[in-house]
Amino acid sequence: MTTADLTTLDQAGLEAALQKAGDTVKALKAKKVSKEEVQPAVDHLLAVKAEVKRRAEQAQKDGTAPKEFDRAALDALLAQRFFVAPSFQIYGGIAGLYDYGPPACALQNNILAAWRHHFVLEEDMLEVECTNLTPESVLKTSGHVDRFADYMVKDVKTGDIFRADHLVKQVLKQRLDDDQKLKSGLKVKVAKGKPQPVQLDKEVRDEYDMILETLDNYVGEDLTNLLKRLEIRAPETGNELSEPVLFNLMFETQIGPTGQFRGFLRPETAQGHFLNFKKLLEFNNDKMPFASASVGKSFRNEISPRQGLLRVREFTMAEIEHYVDPTKKDHPRFGEVRNVVVPLYSASAQAEAAGPTKLSIGEAVDKGIINNQTLGYFVARIYLFLLRIGIDPARLRMRQHMANEMAHYATDCWDAEIQSSYGWIECVGCADRSAYDLTAHSKRTGERLTVQERLAEPIVTNALELDILQPNFGKTLKKNAKVVETYLNGFKNEDEEWNEKELTKLDEEIKAKGSVTVTAADGNQYELNSTLISITRKTKKVSVRNYVPNVIEPSFGIGRILYQLLEHSYYVRQDDEQRAVFKFRPGIAPNKALVVPISQSDRETFEPHIKQVVSALRRAGVANKVDNSGASIGRRYARNDELGTPFAVTVDFQTLKDGTVTLRERDSTKQIRESISTVVGLLKELVEESTTWEAVAKMYPEFVAQEV
Amino acid sequence: MTTADLTTLDQAGLEAALQKAGDTVKALKAKKVSKEEVQPAVDHLLAVKAEVKRRAEQAQKDGTAPKEFDRAALDALLAQRFFVAPSFQIYGGIAGLYDYGPPACALQNNILAAWRHHFVLEEDMLEVECTNLTPESVLKTSGHVDRFADYMVKDVKTGDIFRADHLVKQVLKQRLDDDQKLKSGLKVKVAKGKPQPVQLDKEVRDEYDMILETLDNYVGEDLTNLLKRLEIRAPETGNELSEPVLFNLMFETQIGPTGQFRGFLRPETAQGHFLNFKKLLEFNNDKMPFASASVGKSFRNEISPRQGLLRVREFTMAEIEHYVDPTKKDHPRFGEVRNVVVPLYSASAQAEAAGPTKLSIGEAVDKGIINNQTLGYFVARIYLFLLRIGIDPARLRMRQHMANEMAHYATDCWDAEIQSSYGWIECVGCADRSAYDLTAHSKRTGERLTVQERLAEPIVTNALELDILQPNFGKTLKKNAKVVETYLNGFKNEDEEWNEKELTKLDEEIKAKGSVTVTAADGNQYELNSTLISITRKTKKVSVRNYVPNVIEPSFGIGRILYQLLEHSYYVRQDDEQRAVFKFRPGIAPNKALVVPISQSDRETFEPHIKQVVSALRRAGVANKVDNSGASIGRRYARNDELGTPFAVTVDFQTLKDGTVTLRERDSTKQIRESISTVVGLLKELVEESTTWEAVAKMYPEFVAQEV
Repeated sequence: MTTADLTTLDQAGLEAALQKAGDTVKALKAKKVSKEEVQPAVDHLLAVKAEVKRRAEQAQKDGTAPKEFDRAALDALLAQRFFVAPSFQIYGGIAGLYDYGPPACALQNNILAAWRHHFVLEEDMLEVECTNLTPESVLKTSGHVDRFADYMVKDVKTGDIFRADHLVKQVLKQRLDDDQKLKSGLKVKVAKGKPQPVQLDKEVRDEYDMILETLDNYVGEDLTNLLKRLEIRAPETGNELSEPVLFNLMFETQIGPTGQFRGFLRPETAQGHFLNFKKLLEFNNDKMPFASASVGKSFRNEISPRQGLLRVREFTMAEIEHYVDPTKKDHPRFGEVRNVVVPLYSASAQAEAAGPTKLSIGEAVDKGIINNQTLGYFVARIYLFLLRIGIDPARLRMRQHMANEMAHYATDCWDAEIQSSYGWIECVGCADRSAYDLTAHSKRTGERLTVQERLAEPIVTNALELDILQPNFGKTLKKNAKVVETYLNGFKNEDEEWNEKELTKLDEEIKAKGSVTVTAADGNQYELNSTLISITRKTKKVSVRNYVPNVIEPSFGIGRILYQLLEHSYYVRQDDEQRAVFKFRPGIAPNKALVVPISQSDRETFEPHIKQVVSALRRAGVANKVDNSGASIGRRYARNDELGTPFAVTVDFQTLKDGTVTLRERDSTKQIRESISTVVGLLKELVEESTTWEAVAKMYPEFVAQEV
Repeated sequence: MTTADLTTLDQAGLEAALQKAGDTVKALKAKKVSKEEVQPAVDHLLAVKAEVKRRAEQAQKDGTAPKEFDRAALDALLAQRFFVAPSFQIYGGIAGLYDYGPPACALQNNILAAWRHHFVLEEDMLEVECTNLTPESVLKTSGHVDRFADYMVKDVKTGDIFRADHLVKQVLKQRLDDDQKLKSGLKVKVAKGKPQPVQLDKEVRDEYDMILETLDNYVGEDLTNLLKRLEIRAPETGNELSEPVLFNLMFETQIGPTGQFRGFLRPETAQGHFLNFKKLLEFNNDKMPFASASVGKSFRNEISPRQGLLRVREFTMAEIEHYVDPTKKDHPRFGEVRNVVVPLYSASAQAEAAGPTKLSIGEAVDKGIINNQTLGYFVARIYLFLLRIGIDPARLRMRQHMANEMAHYATDCWDAEIQSSYGWIECVGCADRSAYDLTAHSKRTGERLTVQERLAEPIVTNALELDILQPNFGKTLKKNAKVVETYLNGFKNEDEEWNEKELTKLDEEIKAKGSVTVTAADGNQYELNSTLISITRKTKKVSVRNYVPNVIEPSFGIGRILYQLLEHSYYVRQDDEQRAVFKFRPGIAPNKALVVPISQSDRETFEPHIKQVVSALRRAGVANKVDNSGASIGRRYARNDELGTPFAVTVDFQTLKDGTVTLRERDSTKQIRESISTVVGLLKELVEESTTWEAVAKMYPEFVAQEV
């Protein structure tokens, strides 16, 4: 598409073009092509951006601009109705730490209950609870002590600290903004002592745009050079910055009074599962495959967290570790998800900037887009779970990691990304961690974290073996016998099998020269001949196979999912801009039913009926709250719309005559009128999601007469 | 009772006498009576202990000794069936940190679900989730930074650290044991270089016994002197010890990369509730009283934790903070618990060593044994909760704190104590924290954490008030005006009312001498007279009352409750010593039903029936596990007895003919035989505890024919 064509596109077409243009630049940059080659793509991206901006300004002028999502209004509502609050707010708060008030706490409990039902119960997973406190040795093995870090820079005079990539982003965006203002003749205010903003050449603008699109690629020296070349300084003071250094994101502490155990708060729950692998396998009667699951807190000492609930220092995770035979990654229940259609954004599609494709999981695995059935099974199950709790399918995709962004332990990884006003955000990761962790912990501790499979038929093997010829070996090498033996054992792999190639080499050399000289771990050389070792081919019957299982890990950031669900559920009534609503599904909503008397004036008259409704609801297991405050009935409904309460049961003057009550649904605001027992029965079904309001509204006449 | 009478007592009588004798010594010591006065009580205690020992030895000889609870066997079972495991066991583990495997994890989930149902839902509490990470300032205010500590001593040469009171206990017990061995002519082995054990005079033995009974009373200098007088040394090395110093039990860490926020892992969840008090009150539409609730981890860096799951460094708490008007501590639902009879061990009964008394909660509050209705209400509700989850009522009591053991913030406190092989252990605390925390946080932050009560009728007050006479005050005192004004405001109490007594004094002095000289916070003296301030009596109409609520706090140590429940539920089948069972109630049991085919040989024949049972159970919400392993049916039942699974559904050859299955109950091992739908329906009712096995066994004929 040429830039000129852009004006002919409809709005959806333009948005698609914007996405594609951005993806194209990213893909080219990931391929590390030359600046010249990427330039046309950058030009095109800027042209699309310009057209988007032009249209938005035009719509603003015409008054036809669509009502934009107002994050500030949502944030205000979340604070006002105590969904969340900054922790220790009366002490000034600390960035990245939040408390959940009653509505968010109930919402999270319901999401976790749905999660346990969807995964743990349905798949018979083994739930464990491991400690947050973790000794250094464990996290050293897992790689977190050395590699779980972000780059930070320091203001050399004040000591203020910034996360390097975030700072670059902030400064470049500021420069681009200033440039645009200057070009349109606006003045840019600058505090005293700070550098004056300058107009930028087109070339520089283009470079900044490109850096912003590909910031993740800059690490180590590249990042140091970038900061120097861009002359990035501390934004408030204008002081110089130190070179970027890695800051480990784990919270450190001492376990025990003597300080002998350096420890950390875990950055993920996964390691606890792995350390218990042998016990879990035994608990599962040694049957493979199986999964462990855990819900708990994890901690990351973010350098300077922003983005509200999406980047926090303490958060709830729900993690699954599914252990599977590396040679049999089929999944017994794959047939159940084969036809589930999922928006998949594969690594190759990203490289070609092609956008996500809707594909059945079966097809994706058959074509090799998803590596294996087990990974595919979980990609589908994660997708279904997110839909089940109410995530908007139009703002949900499964994106494969590109090779350069994969975690150090992963061989393939798919993220569930959910779109909100913060962009596309990773909320669930589904990685194939291979045998990385179990192998590492096993090597470090000497504990064998393997599965023993009894073979249906013994396998006859025919392989080279090395034998040490005692007593001559001991007599000849004396106190060095041990170190030489250790050297020779180095020719075995993890499964205790001899390396055929190395043994052949050794054998040939001895046969050719009569002896071979080797260098052991003590640095000394030893001469070995056929009186000390023998290398022969042997035939053996093997009836057990040992293997380290591979691990498929679906890992859920519950807080992120919760926030995205809040954005997806939030809307403002069209007929009344003052009235915000959360359209939570009945199964997930914090509270299920509001119970109200129509007015407070005859409180005692209504009281027994209210009690009757409440006790019937409690028996039916429907969470409910009574609001018998003096506020108008409309106000009380509105207050519960703001909490996302899906239903309201109203006791009114007709109740006193015939024992009927009204049942109101939140989004339609429609009501029906039936006996208390009918309404309670319907509510039970609605909340269990075994029926829908649409079905109920069809079966029962609408009630419209009630006046407030 | 004289010592001679002891031999005539039956076993229960002797145990009661032992309890009473111990309590008597404790009570006397708490009263700080002289050594001479307490001596007869100590003599009696030793005589009772001797009689207990004599009988145990006799019973052993006669072979009539009752089967003792075997903690080692329980611990082995808990490890073997992966209820719990030391965390990081393959790395050697760290004392005081445990992981929960699948059975304990499910058990804890079920206990917490019961807790939420019993408290949060039933009482409409506001559940919150606050962070584990807590900045120092908050815990400074709450008193934890200064006071949350235990005494430790250090081996001056090796640096090894011991908790002082635990060390005294260990050393004195050792000395008493050695003494007894020496007296009975046995040799005591002592490692080289360590002091030889010595025989003790009766006086010394008595003193040691008394110290062991009253160790909690030694703090500060008393403890230092005790260690010196007893010549306590490091047990392994025999080295000298440092003087005892307080070690703060909180885990410290740094929040953020610059180290500017010193923080701790919270030692309790309570502070998070308090900091959010204003938001909670507003969420509750300003209605009092109400409660917040929270479930989460807390952390205590124990000096050297032993006692397994009862003393750990990281644990789950469930805490309630109930906010109440200090002048109206009645509870609206008190009537519902008035007749609940609870074993209460009041402070005065402890002082008299009288033992607990069974009393109705109504009587206890009426008599002033429990301070107020709200505290009494929660004492009863806690007791009912513990019974509901299966704690043995014979090993449960509510014990009031004596004045010398009360936490610094509490005005009254009752512990739910549960008895196990570790003795009587505090598992729930129920404290009246008064207005301590809210007042402290309010003072520190300047945020008013009060309730505004609109009075039904305005109150007319007539009180002295102080007015600053501007502009003269400012003109005269100039830059010192502020400091003098602050000084004068010091005569106001928290509710902004002037102190009548102080103002009268001031007024009289000015009237008598013409002026008064005061010393302000800057250390300077200022002369005040009637041109600067005026003190007059004013009549005012007040229509709002401000008050800081009191807080009643039921605080549950979930891990301790869980362990005690394990001990109370554990038994060994009388007919088969190999078969251990947990008799968990159906509502609490980790897994509800085992589903088994009678044999593995016809696996494919049984499979569709197994699937039918499982899917019906899943629909009914009954958690179940299939065991189609090759083990015998008896072995598979036994494995599930060890997990406390209350029911088993068996598919056998008769199922193939008529579609019936058997339902087996764990403790009776009895079975009935009915259709799948009948059995699933019964299981649903049994697990919801809306019926009992006894009732089911009466209604359906016993099935006995099945042979394995």
